[in-house]
Amino acid sequence: MKQLLLDYTLQLADTTFILGHRLSEWCGHGPVLEQDMALSNIALDLIGETRSLYQYAAELEGKGRTEDDLAYLRDAVEYKNPLLVEQPNGDFGDTIMRQFIFDSFHYFFLKELQNSTDHRLAAIAEKSLKESSYHIKWSSEWVIRLGDGTEESRQRIEKAIENLWPFSGELFTMTGTEKALLELGVISDYSMIKQSSDAHIAKVFKEATLEIPQNIWMQSGGKEGRHTEHLGFILTELQYLQRAYPGLEW
Amino acid sequence: MKQLLLDYTLQLADTTFILGHRLSEWCGHGPVLEQDMALSNIALDLIGETRSLYQYAAELEGKGRTEDDLAYLRDAVEYKNPLLVEQPNGDFGDTIMRQFIFDSFHYFFLKELQNSTDHRLAAIAEKSLKESSYHIKWSSEWVIRLGDGTEESRQRIEKAIENLWPFSGELFTMTGTEKALLELGVISDYSMIKQSSDAHIAKVFKEATLEIPQNIWMQSGGKEGRHTEHLGFILTELQYLQRAYPGLEW
Repeated sequence: MKQLLLDYTLQLADTTFILGHRLSEWCGHGPVLEQDMALSNIALDLIGETRSLYQYAAELEGKGRTEDDLAYLRDAVEYKNPLLVEQPNGDFGDTIMRQFIFDSFHYFFLKELQNSTDHRLAAIAEKSLKESSYHIKWSSEWVIRLGDGTEESRQRIEKAIENLWPFSGELFTMTGTEKALLELGVISDYSMIKQSSDAHIAKVFKEATLEIPQNIWMQSGGKEGRHTEHLGFILTELQYLQRAYPGLEW
Repeated sequence: MKQLLLDYTLQLADTTFILGHRLSEWCGHGPVLEQDMALSNIALDLIGETRSLYQYAAELEGKGRTEDDLAYLRDAVEYKNPLLVEQPNGDFGDTIMRQFIFDSFHYFFLKELQNSTDHRLAAIAEKSLKESSYHIKWSSEWVIRLGDGTEESRQRIEKAIENLWPFSGELFTMTGTEKALLELGVISDYSMIKQSSDAHIAKVFKEATLEIPQNIWMQSGGKEGRHTEHLGFILTELQYLQRAYPGLEW
């Protein structure tokens, strides 16, 4: 049970960590101050959630590793984030679509996790839910603005859907660890979350005059540690300092 | 009068913009999650202050330029930030010392600006002061921790003082624009701000067992548009997207 919870908590932490890092790549690089700030704010929220999760994982593990050790000093195969969150920022449309797909999972996921029998996870979910409700509002509004916008914005967001939709399925596909925790009553069935998520996506896409791709082949593997080449580059960058100067802040 | 206010507001905006951008270079690159978040939060506060200032400047100018035009589409000589804020991040000690010197100016500066006869500047100062009071607390604590820390941390922070102290004087040296606004009763004399700032720095350095450099030659020129080579590199990076794709968000 403890090992299951540890694996699961790490998977959740890896997910918000990698996405938070991806978003922080926009920091100071957006050509529009307002959206640069919005993306940075979302990144910070996700890194905040990440810290709570790695701290809990460190306690569950009980081997003296810290949140930073868990965040920065593991190998790529040990990271269990779904492939969606490691996908590149691309253009603003890609970043928005990646965020929208993630938020449409994350928000409804946290809503359920609030009721977990694991009180620590429930408390983290409750804290993060409020932030996530802003994220989903923000990314949904942008999908509508871009989809129902100019000819160029529409083409961009359609291309983003094409690029990223194949990574949406993995979010809702339960791994062995997730199924075991479902059996134990710690977490809910993701098919319930998927219903709420599907309904939200359908509503937003309709308003954005966008079509939901049908019968598309879904990517998977990230939650089992099989990653796209992108994660390696992210980790190289993230881990450079820690590996070059272990434990140093310089 | 309007031209003076415009020049001054742009100078203030450039200052928090360039420092905010410098700090955002740490986003996702700090090897410690907690401090990575703290630096990102400070960056966001400064960019928030920046936006209010550029928005006001755009209104004062009244030529249809937006906050983003002012932030991203001017030449280096038009930026009037003091040289301190364009200095490189260096190591964590350099970043902390740059921040501490800046905060020791900025906090007491905002406190005075709250009383400006220009109500818009006064309102921006009031809003930013609360954030700045967290920044000065954070950077002061770090100066103490590093100065009165390990042998290595002490050497690092002493080197940082050596690097950055020569940029402290310019913050308090009033330009022609600033003197004119002082004459008009819009802003306070910076020598009053300097007294409060000096007292704070003396207190913190004493606790950190650090020495304040004496009789040092002070750099200047940034507030008049004469910059170190660093600003050019920052602007190249900041302006690349806007100049490559004017007005586009992609």
